[in-house]
Amino acid sequence: MTGDGEVLSRLERPTHARRGPNAVLAGLVDIVRDFLSARPAPDAVGVACAGQIDRGTGSVVYAPNLDWRDVPLAAHLRRALGLPIVVENDVRAAAWGEFRFGAGVRCRSLLAVFVGTGVGSGAVLDGRLWRGAANAAGEVGHTQVVWDGLACPCGRRGCLEQYVSGSGLQRRLGQVLADGVGTSLVAATDGDPARLTVAMVQAAAGAGDPVARALWADAERYLTLGAANYVTLLNPEMLVLGGGVIETVPALFEAVATGVPELTTVLARAVRIERARLGDWSGVVGAAALASEGA
Amino acid sequence: MTGDGEVLSRLERPTHARRGPNAVLAGLVDIVRDFLSARPAPDAVGVACAGQIDRGTGSVVYAPNLDWRDVPLAAHLRRALGLPIVVENDVRAAAWGEFRFGAGVRCRSLLAVFVGTGVGSGAVLDGRLWRGAANAAGEVGHTQVVWDGLACPCGRRGCLEQYVSGSGLQRRLGQVLADGVGTSLVAATDGDPARLTVAMVQAAAGAGDPVARALWADAERYLTLGAANYVTLLNPEMLVLGGGVIETVPALFEAVATGVPELTTVLARAVRIERARLGDWSGVVGAAALASEGA
Repeated sequence: MTGDGEVLSRLERPTHARRGPNAVLAGLVDIVRDFLSARPAPDAVGVACAGQIDRGTGSVVYAPNLDWRDVPLAAHLRRALGLPIVVENDVRAAAWGEFRFGAGVRCRSLLAVFVGTGVGSGAVLDGRLWRGAANAAGEVGHTQVVWDGLACPCGRRGCLEQYVSGSGLQRRLGQVLADGVGTSLVAATDGDPARLTVAMVQAAAGAGDPVARALWADAERYLTLGAANYVTLLNPEMLVLGGGVIETVPALFEAVATGVPELTTVLARAVRIERARLGDWSGVVGAAALASEGA
Repeated sequence: MTGDGEVLSRLERPTHARRGPNAVLAGLVDIVRDFLSARPAPDAVGVACAGQIDRGTGSVVYAPNLDWRDVPLAAHLRRALGLPIVVENDVRAAAWGEFRFGAGVRCRSLLAVFVGTGVGSGAVLDGRLWRGAANAAGEVGHTQVVWDGLACPCGRRGCLEQYVSGSGLQRRLGQVLADGVGTSLVAATDGDPARLTVAMVQAAAGAGDPVARALWADAERYLTLGAANYVTLLNPEMLVLGGGVIETVPALFEAVATGVPELTTVLARAVRIERARLGDWSGVVGAAALASEGA
């Protein structure tokens, strides 16, 4: 990517996380070397990685999706490639991507909330990415929207993620089936809750299925509540909504865009609510931008 | 106050808000002139004022407690005193006071939540006060902790302030009395809900009064939930709790200090939770600090 955000070339490869960190790191190095063979060396390489990143070292402290603990990602790539490496948490990088080259290019402050398998976010305040004291800021999916609500794999209850993310709704459907409650979602998923998508829930709710209507009402309600509380606390210029669920279920974006101003304080209500513009690439673009800015 | 935070002299006077803005402004000028008559002129004057402040002009856009709208506070004082004037929202000034000279002197980031008649807060992130795009950040009292919960005078439902502030608990007791439910709080308040304090609720709850126990449980629970969500979103080094209710009801501080780490994400849990140290003077000290820093 150029410093102006122009993406010169795109390439997607599967991670093959099950092969372990060494194989994944070797694969990453191969991808970058393939790239470099055909073009001049870049100033730096940015990496957007799920999980908790050590800011100082660029190591992955813990990434549950990859099953990584203490993997020296930046150090390895730097050694193998001989280039400056910047590693950032994928969701935070995505927020930065939307701020620099996506929905928020004319903003000084924004919150970007991404809803997919989970719910994450990044905050840009006065032109700076806020990472938190332990590099853990922005976990909006684990703010609690219901006291003593649904159990979350994180160990707490009532986390937003349980009501609106793909994984949360799959878990809820599993419970519904275990309870023997009838729903058209059984046919839609061939009886396998892991096949459930938020789009299926919305479609079945629209067709009048009572279980789906309850799940859909909760998804709309609590995503709106969680986003509104975030906006009330931080009073950003813009709220960006993105991620697979937002992209495939336009009604969810509409519900939040309508509901958030009704639930926020009067002055925070001026927040502009926009869809993310960079799609799946927001994290990649954001990481590249951070790398080119030397951050 | 000196630039090191040493308070050289203190003076308290009633505001007499009912006399209107002109009388209040004249009274303010008199106080400062009294001060100046006996000592060298300060570099600047800081004013902590309840309500919404226009950052550019130092005018009070709206202050419900004072019943002020569009009062040119800074311009008036500047003209009358011939000194640089900095006006800041009182709660945000208090957060800055605690950051500069109170509980947070060794921090780079903190959230300061004050519980009194209402619930407000200020956030310091990487050494900077975060004011929000419309100067409206930090309204933690109006984050919604219960979907479709208790009605709030702000027009929404389930706001934290209704469950834990003095005014919120008085409103709840009024409803209990209107419903004809018996409680020892009737005797404690001589039947006037406006006399209710959070300390009375705690005492009656401890003595086993069922109404008081329910109110107290909600106060503990939702202050903990609201503060925990704030910490999860921003991952500050420190959470400072202050205000009249926290100062007079130590059990509430203890409940939040114990409960917040249980409800936050693992990494945010390292947050230090401290009592505010400057008491009623945190806003004054903070405003003076902001003025001396030219902010």
